[in-house]
Amino acid sequence: MADAIDRDTTLADLGEFGLIARIGELVAATAPGEDVLLGPGDDAAVLRVRKGHVVVSTDVLVEGRHFRRDWVEAYDVGRRAAAQNLSDINAMGGRAQWLTVGLAAPADLPAQWALDFTRGFAEECALVGAGLVGGDVTRADQVVIAVTALGACTVSPVLRSGAAPGDVLALCGRQGWSAGGLAVLGRGFRSPRVLVEAYRRPEPPYDAGPAAAEAGATAMIDVSDGLLAEVGHLAADSGVSIDVETAAFDVPEPLLAVGQATGADPLQFILGGGEDHPLLATFPPGVALPDGWTRIGSVSARGDLPVTVDGAAYDGPTGWTHF
Amino acid sequence: MADAIDRDTTLADLGEFGLIARIGELVAATAPGEDVLLGPGDDAAVLRVRKGHVVVSTDVLVEGRHFRRDWVEAYDVGRRAAAQNLSDINAMGGRAQWLTVGLAAPADLPAQWALDFTRGFAEECALVGAGLVGGDVTRADQVVIAVTALGACTVSPVLRSGAAPGDVLALCGRQGWSAGGLAVLGRGFRSPRVLVEAYRRPEPPYDAGPAAAEAGATAMIDVSDGLLAEVGHLAADSGVSIDVETAAFDVPEPLLAVGQATGADPLQFILGGGEDHPLLATFPPGVALPDGWTRIGSVSARGDLPVTVDGAAYDGPTGWTHF
Repeated sequence: MADAIDRDTTLADLGEFGLIARIGELVAATAPGEDVLLGPGDDAAVLRVRKGHVVVSTDVLVEGRHFRRDWVEAYDVGRRAAAQNLSDINAMGGRAQWLTVGLAAPADLPAQWALDFTRGFAEECALVGAGLVGGDVTRADQVVIAVTALGACTVSPVLRSGAAPGDVLALCGRQGWSAGGLAVLGRGFRSPRVLVEAYRRPEPPYDAGPAAAEAGATAMIDVSDGLLAEVGHLAADSGVSIDVETAAFDVPEPLLAVGQATGADPLQFILGGGEDHPLLATFPPGVALPDGWTRIGSVSARGDLPVTVDGAAYDGPTGWTHF
Repeated sequence: MADAIDRDTTLADLGEFGLIARIGELVAATAPGEDVLLGPGDDAAVLRVRKGHVVVSTDVLVEGRHFRRDWVEAYDVGRRAAAQNLSDINAMGGRAQWLTVGLAAPADLPAQWALDFTRGFAEECALVGAGLVGGDVTRADQVVIAVTALGACTVSPVLRSGAAPGDVLALCGRQGWSAGGLAVLGRGFRSPRVLVEAYRRPEPPYDAGPAAAEAGATAMIDVSDGLLAEVGHLAADSGVSIDVETAAFDVPEPLLAVGQATGADPLQFILGGGEDHPLLATFPPGVALPDGWTRIGSVSARGDLPVTVDGAAYDGPTGWTHF
């Protein structure tokens, strides 16, 4: 078995080419993705493109910043690293087809960690029929994972800049669960388990992006840094103002429980939390929202504030920035 | 001007979005690359693909391992980061069109470093008409740069696996210069300047890859880790043996000088050195080599050793591995 390896074996023991060979075996055992004419192992992968264009996105995850090895298993880091990149393609209204991974890691990292990571990564990709087609491994002081995802859209890609006054703001997918899970872990607890699991492994609504594009979404983004922060990106790029209506959110039971336990307003997890990767989109008024989408606000001409909550300024945390 | 900034300004001062905005200005000022329908700033870039396939490659550079900030200016790190990825596309016989960059860096990194890096990166890309179309920035303990390059081939991509007995092994581009420069810097010297410059900024022969593909090259690879190591990859993937003939190398004057100063055999820089990114390719017997290519060896049926030097085993350093 490709992933059976002594637990004391480090990347230094396995060596660069040993690691690449093991990763290659793992990848070969999973869905290769469509139209891969040549996968990992040469100077570049070769891909057959059926559509007239591709969409491409890159994200970087850093140990200690985006994940902690003592909180999240390697397999789940792999799932998450793939998910957040698949989600970027989803947010264009596309379907991801091919991904590459650059992995920088300490020489004393257990080799099993890299293999479990790869297995999680490949399995998340397989959810949408995408394949890991190439990458690079090298040594660094901490684990840094850089992922590039390539995909295709069947209709025009949905940008952040197309929202117009009168449009409806809608959300599809879990929101605030990951932030709730992080709050739980940060206090040394392990429950509600469903939130901890959501933190460890997001479940982006991969079919929702293409469905929204086909339904005529005017603008779209995924929530990686925080809901209000992402609403702010839509508003800024579209030159509009957007109001979020808190009455539209049905705060789920586990978030209510964490709110009670920690004294936090559970709505803060929803408005400020990131990393669940639901989709936010605007639709023209009168469009029937696709399955799974819920109206959570409205778009108006640019006013004094780009983003309001229930018609007023919001002074809670709105998201996450990286410096 | 996008790159005029106080030298004491750090990434933390500029902030994630401030940095992204500055990078965006820089990128907009350089060649955008062909067929970029949407560049940086959305969830993904959108690219028009004219050919029926794309080639894609990913490389990671780590501070302290692939470059030292006290030895190489940020601008040159940018040139080099682009060059090694453009070279991977070159080694398939393709032309790079689009690149993405993931940059992880300490919060106290001078913002000017990131901007100079970006400028160098974009200028190297412009040499082949390629454009920087997307990326990500985040915080880490050391600078880690992950680059993905996308390109197209006008004829079939040239793999590592096509060399056949009777083929000629040929080289195009400077080889051993970077290793010579590194040896110089490692001893605290700054000359021969031409070698130090070669270490800081490789000059891959970007036209040689497509020319070799059109001339019928049977296998190709770029020399990133060391010439004999790369010959070994060609031999292994093609199931052949390859002999390298040292008489074919015209050892350049600056390498002779470093050899004399350090007591090293200058041929070691050529046989074991990496990071110059010349191309190694095999051609069928009788094919006229394209301009700039020199015959340096020959391919035979798989014998006892995959790689020989002047018909015998070689016991010097053959290259670099990353763990």
